[in-house]
This record gives sequence, C-alpha cells and structure tokens, in this order.
Amino acid sequence: MTRLLPGLQSPADVRALPEAELPRLCEELREEIISICGRVGGHLGASLGAVELVVALHRVFHSPQDALVFDVGHQAYAHKLLSGRRERMETLRQAGGIAPFLDPRESPHDALAAGHACTAVSAALGMLEGRRLLGRKGRVVAVVGDGALTGGLTFEGLNNAGGLPLPLVVVLNDNQMSISANVGAIPALLRTREARSFFEGLGFTYLGPVDGHELGALADTLREARASLRPVVVHALTQKGRGFPPAEADTQTRGHAMGPYEWRDGKLVRSRGGQRTFSEAFATALEEVMARDSRVVAVSPAMLEGSALVGLKARYPERVHDVGIAEQHAVTFCAGLAAMGARPVCAIYSTFLQRAFDQVIHDVCLPGLPVVFAVDRAGLVGADGATHQGTYDISSLRALPGLALMAPVVGEDMAPMLASALAATGPTVIRFPRGTLSPVPPELDPGVAPIQGARWLLRAEAPRLTLVTLGPLGLAALAAAKAEHGWSVLDARCVSPLDAPALLEAAACGHVVVVEEGTTRGGLGSAVLELYAAHGCSARVRLMGMPDTFVPHGDARVQRAQLGLDSEGMRRAGRELLGAGR
Amino acid sequence: MTRLLPGLQSPADVRALPEAELPRLCEELREEIISICGRVGGHLGASLGAVELVVALHRVFHSPQDALVFDVGHQAYAHKLLSGRRERMETLRQAGGIAPFLDPRESPHDALAAGHACTAVSAALGMLEGRRLLGRKGRVVAVVGDGALTGGLTFEGLNNAGGLPLPLVVVLNDNQMSISANVGAIPALLRTREARSFFEGLGFTYLGPVDGHELGALADTLREARASLRPVVVHALTQKGRGFPPAEADTQTRGHAMGPYEWRDGKLVRSRGGQRTFSEAFATALEEVMARDSRVVAVSPAMLEGSALVGLKARYPERVHDVGIAEQHAVTFCAGLAAMGARPVCAIYSTFLQRAFDQVIHDVCLPGLPVVFAVDRAGLVGADGATHQGTYDISSLRALPGLALMAPVVGEDMAPMLASALAATGPTVIRFPRGTLSPVPPELDPGVAPIQGARWLLRAEAPRLTLVTLGPLGLAALAAAKAEHGWSVLDARCVSPLDAPALLEAAACGHVVVVEEGTTRGGLGSAVLELYAAHGCSARVRLMGMPDTFVPHGDARVQRAQLGLDSEGMRRAGRELLGAGR
Repeated sequence: MTRLLPGLQSPADVRALPEAELPRLCEELREEIISICGRVGGHLGASLGAVELVVALHRVFHSPQDALVFDVGHQAYAHKLLSGRRERMETLRQAGGIAPFLDPRESPHDALAAGHACTAVSAALGMLEGRRLLGRKGRVVAVVGDGALTGGLTFEGLNNAGGLPLPLVVVLNDNQMSISANVGAIPALLRTREARSFFEGLGFTYLGPVDGHELGALADTLREARASLRPVVVHALTQKGRGFPPAEADTQTRGHAMGPYEWRDGKLVRSRGGQRTFSEAFATALEEVMARDSRVVAVSPAMLEGSALVGLKARYPERVHDVGIAEQHAVTFCAGLAAMGARPVCAIYSTFLQRAFDQVIHDVCLPGLPVVFAVDRAGLVGADGATHQGTYDISSLRALPGLALMAPVVGEDMAPMLASALAATGPTVIRFPRGTLSPVPPELDPGVAPIQGARWLLRAEAPRLTLVTLGPLGLAALAAAKAEHGWSVLDARCVSPLDAPALLEAAACGHVVVVEEGTTRGGLGSAVLELYAAHGCSARVRLMGMPDTFVPHGDARVQRAQLGLDSEGMRRAGRELLGAGR
Repeated sequence: MTRLLPGLQSPADVRALPEAELPRLCEELREEIISICGRVGGHLGASLGAVELVVALHRVFHSPQDALVFDVGHQAYAHKLLSGRRERMETLRQAGGIAPFLDPRESPHDALAAGHACTAVSAALGMLEGRRLLGRKGRVVAVVGDGALTGGLTFEGLNNAGGLPLPLVVVLNDNQMSISANVGAIPALLRTREARSFFEGLGFTYLGPVDGHELGALADTLREARASLRPVVVHALTQKGRGFPPAEADTQTRGHAMGPYEWRDGKLVRSRGGQRTFSEAFATALEEVMARDSRVVAVSPAMLEGSALVGLKARYPERVHDVGIAEQHAVTFCAGLAAMGARPVCAIYSTFLQRAFDQVIHDVCLPGLPVVFAVDRAGLVGADGATHQGTYDISSLRALPGLALMAPVVGEDMAPMLASALAATGPTVIRFPRGTLSPVPPELDPGVAPIQGARWLLRAEAPRLTLVTLGPLGLAALAAAKAEHGWSVLDARCVSPLDAPALLEAAACGHVVVVEEGTTRGGLGSAVLELYAAHGCSARVRLMGMPDTFVPHGDARVQRAQLGLDSEGMRRAGRELLGAGR
C-alpha cells in the first residue's frame, strides 16, 4: 500500500482524502513523528497526542483562510507534516532547519509565532477582531493545552472573549498534563461535570467532552463549533505520548521532549551525554541547603524536569512547589513566602522570567524581600531557538534597586553563590546557562560565602588588555588570554553590585573587552561603561555578547563561535581593540 | 457626642468597641475619608465603598497576627485610619507623608506592599504557606476587588490555592467596577447565581453574596470564613463611592481618584489645572489618525480615564477596546490585531507595561508586528509613588530587536510621531510623562512623519558641551544651555534606533551630559556610551536620570529638582563635567 503522507502537500490535500483513509493517515503521522524524533530529538509527547485533533482541524477548517493558532507549538508536529514541511522535518530544531515551534515566516499555515504557553486565546481574539474590523472572512481557532489554563494570560483572554459577541473557537486539547502533571484546581475541574458550567460561566458555549482520538466525533464537534456565532470551547480528551509505548510508559512527562533515540534489539536506547549540567549543579547545591535550613523552599512554574528538581520534589514534597504554568504567580508567591520568613528559591528560565518582570520589581525588589532567583537557560539555548534564548535577563534586571545579580563560571561556584544569596537580606539572581559543566581550572577559586565582587582568573604581569567576562565564558577567556601576551581575565561574577575597584583596575591597562552571553544593549558591558564614565576612566572598551537580532535555533556551540563568544573570537576582538588603540 | 476615631490607635481598639458603636464609627470614617480627599486628593471611591468591610475585617481578624493583604490599596483608607495613621492622613501622597497605597514599612498592619492590582491572592498564599512551614500561627486574608478577577495573576493564584489544603481566605470586594466599568465574562458572572459554582469549581468554599454594608452579616460571614480549614471566598457586594453624593453620581468612575475639592454654597468645586496634558495630546493625535485610517484601533488595560481615551471610546465604541486589568492580554491581543492588518495602538502606563514585558518580546517584537505602544506616565509620577514611577521602560525596551523607541518634547511632537509609528512595518514605543504641556519654543520644529533621528534644539557656535536629552527635559536643557556659553542641546528623540551621526557630532566638543527621566542603568545614557565605545570616541560623558533606589511619592517637580533633572541641575552637572575635564 502506498503511503499517503508523501502525496499531501497542503491542508487542502488532507481535506480531499476519503474519510476511510484518515485512520491510516494518523498512523503514518505517528510513525513519522516517532521516527523523526528518534533521529533528531524533539517534543514528542504532545504531538503524538494531538494527531487526530490536527487531522480533524484540517478537515473542518480551511487553513490559511481559517487561522489555526496553536498554543506553544509542542503539539503541532502533525500540523507541520500536513502543511508542506514533511520533507524538511529531518532538519527540525537544527540551524537553518524547521523551527522548533510555529512561525508564520516558515509557513502561511502557522497563523502566529509562539513558543511560550498561554498566548493563543489572546492572539486569536485579536485576529478575529482584526478580521471583523477589516471585513476579512475566515474563522479563528485557538488550540490550547489544559496546562495553559493554569496561566493567567489564557484567563485574561477567555474573560475578554467571553464578554464579546465574536465567534472565537477555543479547542482545549486536554491531555491532563503540562510538561509533567498539572497543578491546581482547574485541571482537576476539567475531568468533572463542572467543566461545562465553568466554561459557560466564562461566557462560552461548551461542546464536549469529546474523545480526542475519535476522528468522526472530533470532526462533528469541530463542525458544530465552526458554525457557532458566539465564543465556543471544544473540549477534547487526548492521551499524551499516544502510540509510542516508551512515551506512554513515562509517568513523569509522557515523552514530552526526547533527545535522539534508537531501537536496538527491540529496546529503546537513548543517547545521553551523561555530563552534569548547570541545572543539576544548582539542584545539588539547593538540596544541600534545604537539608541544612528548613526555611528554604523551591518554587517552579511547571518546569521541575527542566530545572532538574524532580529528585528534590521526591525528597521534599512539601517544600518544592510546582505552581503550574504561572510565572507571575510563582514570583509573587515567593514574595509572600519571603515576607513570612521562609527562604524561597524560584527556579525559572531566563526567557520565562520575562513574564514576571513586574512581579520581580513590584512584589520582590520594592519591599526588598529575600527571594532567590535561579535563572536557568541564561544565554544561548540551542535547539529551542528564538523564543527561548536567555538574552534579556541581565539588561532588564541589573537596573532594579537592591537586586544582586551573579553568575557561576563552574558548577563548584553554585554552592557558595546560593549560600550568599540565602544569607542576604534582599533579593538575588543567580544566572546560569543551559549546558554541561567544565572541570575547575587551577586558576579558579570558588571561594566561600558571602560571594562578593569580581575574581581574577589571570593577571598578566605587564597587562595590555583585560577580558572581563561573566559565567562560563570566563573559561574561554582564560584560554584566549593564555595564548596572548599581557592579557588578563577578570570574572566579573557580580553584575550587581558591580565591583568598581576591580573593574577600574582592569581598565588601568587601557584596553578592556567585556564578554557576556546576553544582549550588549544595557548588559554587563554597559554597566562597565557607566562605571568608567562616572570615574572619567578613558580605557578603550569593546562589548561582546548576543546581537541586536533574535538568534534562531541551532547548535549553541556553533552559534557561540559565530558570535565570537569563544576563545578564538575573544582573541580576535582583543587584537582588533589593541590594533585600533595604536 | 465625642468622636470615636481619635480614641482608636490600633485595630485592637476597634475590636474593643461595643457593637452598637460601629455604625457611628463607619460614619466617622466616611466623613474623614471625604474630608481628607477634599483637602489633599486621593483614591476616594473604592475606600468609601469598603468602610464597613474594613471595620468588619478588623473586628473578626486580629491584625497583625492575622495578615490582611489588600489588593492594590485603593480600598484601604479606612484601614489606614484604624491602624494608627489617622493623625498623619493629612500628609497622604505627599513627600514624606502617608503612602498612597500600603507599605509594611509604614505600618505592621500593612501585610504586604502593593500598588499594582492582582497580587494579593498569590502573595497571601505564599504568606500562608510560609506560616505553615515555619509553624507560625495566624490567618491570612486576601482582600481583592472584582476588577482584579480580570487579571491573570489573580487566577494563577486562585488555581494554585484551590488545589491546596490551606485555609486561605479571599474576600471579594465586589463593587462592579475597576477604575471604571468592568470588562468581560467574569464580572458579569459575579452578579448571577453562577458565582458560587465558579468559585467552587476553583476549589474554594463560597460564602455569600453578603451585603458589604451590613456590618452584622459581614462579620458573621467573615467569622465563618475564619473558621474554615480550607480555601474560602467571601463575596461581599459593595457600592463604590458610597456616602459621598458626587461620587455616587459619577457614573464613569464613582469618584475613583479625585484631586482636592471643596464645598462652596453646597456645591462641590474641584480645583482643576485646566492645562492640557501629554495624555490628552496623545488622545487628540490618536483621534485624528482614527478618523483618517479605519485600520487604527486603541487598546487599554482598564485605564481609559487615565489615558484620556473616554471621549475616543464614546466616538468609536467598536474601535476602542478596554480589555480589563489584563496587561499581558492587552499586548497579545494587539499582536493578533496587527497580524491581521489592523493597526493597534496600546495605551499603557510605563509601570504597567512591565507586566507585559514577555508579550512585547515574544508576541510583538519576535514576529515584528506593527503594534504601537503609547507609554504614558514614563518618568516621575508624583503622588502615586514608588509602585507607579515609570523608571524602567527605556532600559528594558531599548534592547529589543526591531522595536523603535521615541519620545516627544512637546504635545506638537505627538502627531508626527504617531504617524511615523503607524507607517512603520514594525513595533514602536512612544513614551511620554504624566504632566502638562509646555508651549513650543521657537527652537523646536516638530517635523513631519517619518520622524527619524535626533534633533538639535540649540547649536553653540564654539561648542564646549552638549546636553543630550529625551522628552520634555529638552526644554529645561534649552534654558540651561542658553544661560551658559558654548553649550548645545540635542534632543535624542529616538532612543532606538539611535542617531549615531548626531550623537557623534554631539561628542565632538568633548563633553556630553545625557539626561533622561528613567534609570541611568541601561537607559539612553548607556546607549550613548555603547555607541561611543564602538566608535572609540573619547568624549567625557556624564549620565543623569532616576537614581538606583525606588523614588517615593512626592511632588514630581520637587523631585525632579532634587535629582538634578531641571535646568539648574543640568547646569551644575555640565559645569562639574567641564571642570573635571580641565
């Protein structure tokens, strides 16, 4: 039997298929998703659960005239396969390849860019109102996971939509999970009869629950939704990881995101680096302080796995709080904890902390509460791409009064930094990247708490230039400086407060290159320039960091080299600066 | 009859009062609130509506052992009057005086600092969990307005709380309004029988609705809530502005925030400046483009009054969207509108845009959608104080790729800037302060769209120093420069993209003072330093702006002078820089 998928170039081809072929199409989609993820890795679980839902959506709605707005994009691999991208799916998440999430620049069938959760309802409502205003036809469908219902933005959108006479279609892809188990009252409510009255209370017509793997029932319900003249929610019950036994058996995340794997003698073999990561070093340090200090608690917005806190949650179930996909709440909840004398540690990715910027300012820094932010994925993140790059944490956070901001070079820095943060009377950010740990070079002394100020990694005898770095870039700088004459390396370590004496000393040689994995607009480099301007210091300074564009998905190591954020790039930049200074 | 209030020094005294005295106490509280607001202005309406509620809360709960967490603080003047601050209430919102909202540094009865809406449930839940962890006794009560139910953060907190076995008490002070009328499905739901099932669905025990002006019923219900072992919501129906006829008669906001007023011959006379504000200039410019271009729509997160958009809403009811207290949604909704070809203008205060930082990055800048942000209250805001200062918009937004950022000096700049923004293919921020407009000086040409680059306000013949400014500070700089010899003034006008040629020309004289009303950490001044570093430009630069502390409430004009952000301060700074350069 010839395969169907190769013949489908667009959703119109899906609509043209005889209904009897659809189960086979779903089977092929699952095979393809499992096969691709095996070869290149990816967000497997959610996409496997949404196969029938995606097929039914493309049968009933006419993309791109009808806009399908998928929340996050975790669930959308079948959509990619059915919208002209099948042949390139092997390039998924790789440089120049198919995007990790959805992107209108990649396909007209991707109605809106996303990567963060909870945006779909608001965006879809805006699109629908935009169409009304401009007299453009077509329906707008927001496809959201049940996890997105723990996020406030989804509610803001539902509340607004429920009060308007627009025919917004919300498809709730309810697999009973975020990345891992869901949190709170609403996910529990969804599996009761109260789901109907809940959505009706929000002003929506409620259709369902419908079995999200029954194509016929799904299509019927979606057709009914399509005909609605008012806001309507379709509640589809799906099974995350469906059709892939190792994912179905994974009770933690149902195969949410998997690196490449292969079958050997009927067994799944996952290629694992095995090297420890910064996240794990942080979790280890946190576990040690939690054992010593009963006031310390951990808070995560639905990212226990990514933040390496699953083991800690098992050990301290009542002191490790997964609060759901709810970044704002995570931070304000920490503020409340700190106000009562607890010592909350909020483990959050740099890109997701953007969602709680005001809560950091208004609820934590303004009252000066001792909340510790463990900011993971700070800097380049690789395959997750533009939506997930940790670019803006330094520039946005260093301006906040009383907020200390530091970064470890090696895993061994984590314990003294965490101890310093927990001993402080005010808030602290510890930022660290996605990535594996390097051994401690002999030049580096992790020190003991309280960590204060910068740290020389290399002091030249007759210094001509200083590389000022933050985080693990210090190791590359060390390699660069050793290969040159008269180059020193200063690990800034603390962006805020800045170590003025050390940085002024760094400038005494006349040439300073500041290197950070974050935007150069307002980051550590700018802080150094502000300091030098205030002191009338005339050193020549060059800033290196992430560019003034959004960095796409790709291999972080390659991108680092392309941006000059490796020892070769630092040598080049330093030599140029010295040359220009002649 | 002697007045009761002067004898009440703390909530314990309120609890000691005979029940029969309470109606008289409420009457006195209302008189006091009306009298104080008449003399010094303030948030009148919500506080008048919450008088009985506050008295009942202090009768049933024992502050500070029991923590009362008031959302925002608009509703809390009676709480201030009953917690030892009555004698100082005349200093409300003034420099060194009683804070505009609540602040634990001011009173132990203020459980948590606030000023922005929707934080109370999350903070209270954190406090309760903190107490549990540390074995501390006492109840925690979150007092939230119905307006806060349109904000996602409240929902994130309710969802988390509803799934936990903690006895959180949420008191819903339902006056059917935010600042003005509420928006969306949930506020409508609250006045139906569905309110009970809605909160029960969220995992809360529901008590009410109870008449929020019936002391006996209120106290009984609060006592029942206090005894609960699980999350409970008390739904109290109140009347905003109650007891003050001019507020009751104000259909728009029920006397939400009023400047000083007095009674003359039985009539209320409000002292009005009468001078046009930047907000009004923006609204006028917006009205003109909306008349010309049917694609333009305005979006406001529950701030139509503050953003001077009430008249526009009356003229274009379908093109001016109040989306509720929902800043994240406001921005993502705009992204959806822009994606469909509409031209959304999001009118939002600087301090509230902090709540949508990720949405600006992820939903607007990443896809490069042409959303216009009219960022009001950028810079010092005066009486609203620390929570409302517009300090961080420049430093946080200028790092975002493709986002243009500009600021008008005078009201006449607004139209060409708005036209430029609407003609752009990407997003634009126009930032402007709270405050009245100045006449256009002869040196200033508002220009025509597209506005690009900086603008010289004064060019000295033999320049010794350039004042580089942003926004209306340019006028003070002009006055300063005219009083000196060889001083020029460059209005930077666009922070992003920066006008490199003009700024390099500004530096040719060797001395540059950059002045902005925003943090100097990462702001315009840092952008200038980055530019000069990249060009090896060795001018001496001094940065002036808002300090590295939170600026409290006070008179913005006085504060500006204290921070050196007036012509006198600029002269001083410039002279110092020239002196240091000798």
